[in-house]
Amino acid sequence: VGWTEDGVAVALLDQSRLPLEEVILRLEAAAEVAEAIRSLRVRGAPAIGVAAAYGVALGMSGAGDGWPTHLQSLLSLFRGTRPTGRNLFQVLERLEAVGAAMAGASGPEVARALRTEAERVREEDAVACRSIGEAGVKLLPPEGAVVLTHCNAGALATGGVGTALAPVYLARERGIPVEVVACEARPVLQGSRLTAWELMRAGVPVTLITDGMAGARMAVGGISAVVVGADRIAADGSTANKVGTYALALLAREHGIPFYVAAPATTVDLSIPDGRGIRVEERAPAEVRGFGGGGTAPPGVAVWNPAFDITPPELITAFITDGGVIRPPFAPGLHALASPVDRSRP
Amino acid sequence: VGWTEDGVAVALLDQSRLPLEEVILRLEAAAEVAEAIRSLRVRGAPAIGVAAAYGVALGMSGAGDGWPTHLQSLLSLFRGTRPTGRNLFQVLERLEAVGAAMAGASGPEVARALRTEAERVREEDAVACRSIGEAGVKLLPPEGAVVLTHCNAGALATGGVGTALAPVYLARERGIPVEVVACEARPVLQGSRLTAWELMRAGVPVTLITDGMAGARMAVGGISAVVVGADRIAADGSTANKVGTYALALLAREHGIPFYVAAPATTVDLSIPDGRGIRVEERAPAEVRGFGGGGTAPPGVAVWNPAFDITPPELITAFITDGGVIRPPFAPGLHALASPVDRSRP
Repeated sequence: VGWTEDGVAVALLDQSRLPLEEVILRLEAAAEVAEAIRSLRVRGAPAIGVAAAYGVALGMSGAGDGWPTHLQSLLSLFRGTRPTGRNLFQVLERLEAVGAAMAGASGPEVARALRTEAERVREEDAVACRSIGEAGVKLLPPEGAVVLTHCNAGALATGGVGTALAPVYLARERGIPVEVVACEARPVLQGSRLTAWELMRAGVPVTLITDGMAGARMAVGGISAVVVGADRIAADGSTANKVGTYALALLAREHGIPFYVAAPATTVDLSIPDGRGIRVEERAPAEVRGFGGGGTAPPGVAVWNPAFDITPPELITAFITDGGVIRPPFAPGLHALASPVDRSRP
Repeated sequence: VGWTEDGVAVALLDQSRLPLEEVILRLEAAAEVAEAIRSLRVRGAPAIGVAAAYGVALGMSGAGDGWPTHLQSLLSLFRGTRPTGRNLFQVLERLEAVGAAMAGASGPEVARALRTEAERVREEDAVACRSIGEAGVKLLPPEGAVVLTHCNAGALATGGVGTALAPVYLARERGIPVEVVACEARPVLQGSRLTAWELMRAGVPVTLITDGMAGARMAVGGISAVVVGADRIAADGSTANKVGTYALALLAREHGIPFYVAAPATTVDLSIPDGRGIRVEERAPAEVRGFGGGGTAPPGVAVWNPAFDITPPELITAFITDGGVIRPPFAPGLHALASPVDRSRP
């Protein structure tokens, strides 16, 4: 995510067309950015936050004296895109605070400030990714590691080197032999389309499996760790992440494999005590009935399509965060990690 | 599976084209039947056994005095199709025994006997399915049941009403309200393509989910039982079934949901003490690299594609068989079930 060269539109790699096509979209209105989030052209909780920040800033350019109302309607537009990821809402609260602190300023002044804030959101996310990588790489065996991951929590999902994949990239930088087993992540296949793509480009050996093969793979042996990202982490450590994560956590425990959740502080939601409070997005049946427009199931078959599931804290070995590694009991560590962020709320 | 109307070829519904097309293949040579098994035009351990029986009988029509050699080469052709399912080998042993008992008979006589034996294999499989249904329906709550299943162990996978789905069809016959949650079973999607299709045709309510959604579904509550089929059952109860079954068993235990394996005696292999002895077929990477014929992953990405996984006996609540329900410890019950079959070996 960034600005186009002429600075008047948002430039975005269309992830829905990867890996077969690399198309950079030029989005000239906030509504187009919101639609890109809804339709998964940009996805991954941190990247959604970054894209929304750019979208709000874009929407505010040219705002006049009525900017407070306009800002509110932009915030509300992006709040309505995808409900589960915490980072989006954290970013929107941040932008709202920028506006609240500028009562009396002119439209162009506020627009400039929001543009600066959007850049900052992206830069901070990149820094957070690197910190996650630094913390996580120490948890991998230095003689060589095989990391099993789910969905895409890599560079494509963030403004930096990723969350779950950050330790992998850091290991690679440091010459630690590392390879990845990637679950494809049905229904939208972010594992096969995105994780496999970005790892192959980075020269990291990757083996693709379907989600149902993870148990068989763990039974074969040799997996050093399961590392996944997160969309929202409740105060007790309950973690919403791509559907299928929960089964991986259970399998990891059964096989004595450490199960790590890698995420920045902006993913933590201290206002939700446990997993029951996390709202899980349900998406359209067509995603499960087929793929990429092609149908494979009987037309009209009933479908349940939750995009996320909840992994309970008992199954999580540790959180790998931009504030370091947090081990059980998770509540104090998550509270300490996320409180400074909360202080910045209006 | 059956004979064409003119009786000179095998008629087979091409399951690889379901649910969008219903095409009956006319297979005029044993090699075509073997290819149909290899390419999953017919699949499901019991149905593979039935198809192979018809294939051998087809290949023997017109055999002359050299029939013993010809029979051996046909048996070997079918042995080389798919390695994991036990039923195929059980059927081939049976046909071999028919030949062995007919030393001195003419080619046409042996061909006729094998044709009769093939019919018998199919009829016995249909009877076994119904017995599994009778035994299994008693395990479902009579006030109404929600059964979660994986892959396709229904009518399409057998010569009768299925294995895992037999209790569902029997419940329906008896007016017990029953519905099914079907996991799609990547990579070949037998759940979405076949299970959803046959249940919709039978008027049984079915909800389709991806394999990774089973944990989320169990966490929601209301699943009465997980019922799956089996491709091969070792003497201790270790069960090879469609990859992803193992994770379902682990999830079921975590949620206190009974986990049943439904299979006829012909699936049990007493010669293998435990799961380590079961040979798991690995299939072509293209199945995982794409979806419904279209490529979705980066071309050339490394893939691991085991068709089955092994569920250990500790995770299995009971076996539902044509000899009744077998509860732990499984070894004595499985031995008693499968021994009569073994007696018929040469």
